Amino acid sequence: MTVLEAAMARASARVDRALDRFLIKAAVDPAVIHKAMRYSVFAGGKRLRPFLCLGAAQLCGGRAGAALPTACALEALHTYSLIHDDLPAMDDDDLRRGRPTNHKVFGEGMAILAGDALLTFAFELMARNARVPGVKPAGALAAIETIAREAGTLGMVGGQAADLKAEGWHGHPARANRAWNPLPRKQNKPRERLLDFIHSRKTGALIRASLKAGALLVGAPKDRINALDDYGRWIGLAFQIADDVLDVAGDKALLGKNGSDRDNGKLTFPAVYGLEESRRRARAAADKAKRALAPFGRKAALFEALADFIVNRKK
Amino acid sequence: MTVLEAAMARASARVDRALDRFLIKAAVDPAVIHKAMRYSVFAGGKRLRPFLCLGAAQLCGGRAGAALPTACALEALHTYSLIHDDLPAMDDDDLRRGRPTNHKVFGEGMAILAGDALLTFAFELMARNARVPGVKPAGALAAIETIAREAGTLGMVGGQAADLKAEGWHGHPARANRAWNPLPRKQNKPRERLLDFIHSRKTGALIRASLKAGALLVGAPKDRINALDDYGRWIGLAFQIADDVLDVAGDKALLGKNGSDRDNGKLTFPAVYGLEESRRRARAAADKAKRALAPFGRKAALFEALADFIVNRKK
Repeated sequence: MTVLEAAMARASARVDRALDRFLIKAAVDPAVIHKAMRYSVFAGGKRLRPFLCLGAAQLCGGRAGAALPTACALEALHTYSLIHDDLPAMDDDDLRRGRPTNHKVFGEGMAILAGDALLTFAFELMARNARVPGVKPAGALAAIETIAREAGTLGMVGGQAADLKAEGWHGHPARANRAWNPLPRKQNKPRERLLDFIHSRKTGALIRASLKAGALLVGAPKDRINALDDYGRWIGLAFQIADDVLDVAGDKALLGKNGSDRDNGKLTFPAVYGLEESRRRARAAADKAKRALAPFGRKAALFEALADFIVNRKK
Repeated sequence: MTVLEAAMARASARVDRALDRFLIKAAVDPAVIHKAMRYSVFAGGKRLRPFLCLGAAQLCGGRAGAALPTACALEALHTYSLIHDDLPAMDDDDLRRGRPTNHKVFGEGMAILAGDALLTFAFELMARNARVPGVKPAGALAAIETIAREAGTLGMVGGQAADLKAEGWHGHPARANRAWNPLPRKQNKPRERLLDFIHSRKTGALIRASLKAGALLVGAPKDRINALDDYGRWIGLAFQIADDVLDVAGDKALLGKNGSDRDNGKLTFPAVYGLEESRRRARAAADKAKRALAPFGRKAALFEALADFIVNRKK
């Protein structure tokens, strides 16, 4: 196990303990919604966003613990987005991380509510983060505003909406098969631009929000926040390309999914650029991410290693 | 037009202007999600929750304007809950306020995302409320935490989850027709208790949150917040009973809906208590609401009139 892997495992265990403490117990009425939330939160995610949030707080001179509730909130947000993405009206996935998706276990209505509940709970946690010693109210409020914006229609939800529209299928029979491009007509390379539009929002926005929130919570100066934002932009891109590449070339057993992105004819990096060029672009993005960390000097070694890890991971 | 109706119309117009300013323009990419959000936000709601929030701020000695972004956020939250409630996997309604429901116009996937977007946007607005002159960061954070809790699984989403389960139908074919009661067995009057469990959460929680948030934003003392919470509890109950009664005895053309609650065999006040006893209980709740306002003296005249208005309204 590398130093990075050990650090990620420690952060993941810490976040899991905190999530178990913060989330309402499964026995509380109505139990079904609490069970549904916990089912997807504890489904074996990598806890990448919490790791970025805690790490950013430390990198900016604070304690990681100062950002713990918000780190958990980011995982709750990520989990809600996966539950809703998997719904029949969206990607219609039966499996996620090798287990039946939320709506397959709890039904479609309850899965929609479990997502809504996690999204709502995330903001409760972020507000509670203001009570952690050393966190200033202004920092907590800035973190909430940043996360809400990056998770909204100019960020994550906007990326998902564009993705849904681009597929030409959004659950409306009369509009099925009508392909759509949210970008202005007549511009060069529309597929490349659309791919960038979707993924910088769908995946990149919350990754950047995670880093910025950690920094904001410990009162980091503007230039540090901008450097982390830049780092987030590039690892977000690297992450999404690597994800698409794994979907085509990865080991299905390791990934625990059944490749529906490809089956649905989605716009992916390998589909647009080919496998080799996609891999090259992922590596280039990781290099740019590492350069963005320059202001932090040697303290940023873990985040540098993470950029490489994202491109080289097998699942 | 009564004094109350004039005040509600003024608040409604003010909130509509602010919502139009706060919501992202429909032309911004991806336009479809911004159009879907605006379609349901500007569908002719009564703006009751914003009225309560602005009124509570004033009643506690602040300016109504101090709570304006949060008042708009509460309407965004209310709208998201209606969009998701109307989905095929939930109540499966085709009409809302006389117009096709969101998923009928934009498709099911986009309607889910429009709800997610409004829920996320609501918290962005609440965080931005901290920048309004006269609002302290601690007040804004307390308002966010209160609203998130009351909108979550111990409040609004929990009420909806219990409602969905009680119907014995939550989109999961294998579990259809299996009735469910989220309360402990062997207790007296299980239907009455379940009805109270569902409605105090589904409708009551956000009404109470609206009042408390307005008071918290202007730094009101604890006893005033408790009085408003009490008032909210009773008008919430009165509101829901009146809603159920209208659903049975009201004018469908005025209501702009097709009575699906009854068709789905839902647990309603008239179904449990009968029409006359339901009307009596609504009036009793309105009286208790008015008594809760005693600490505010004559300043609370509008809120007193509102309690009666809720019981006597025709739509």
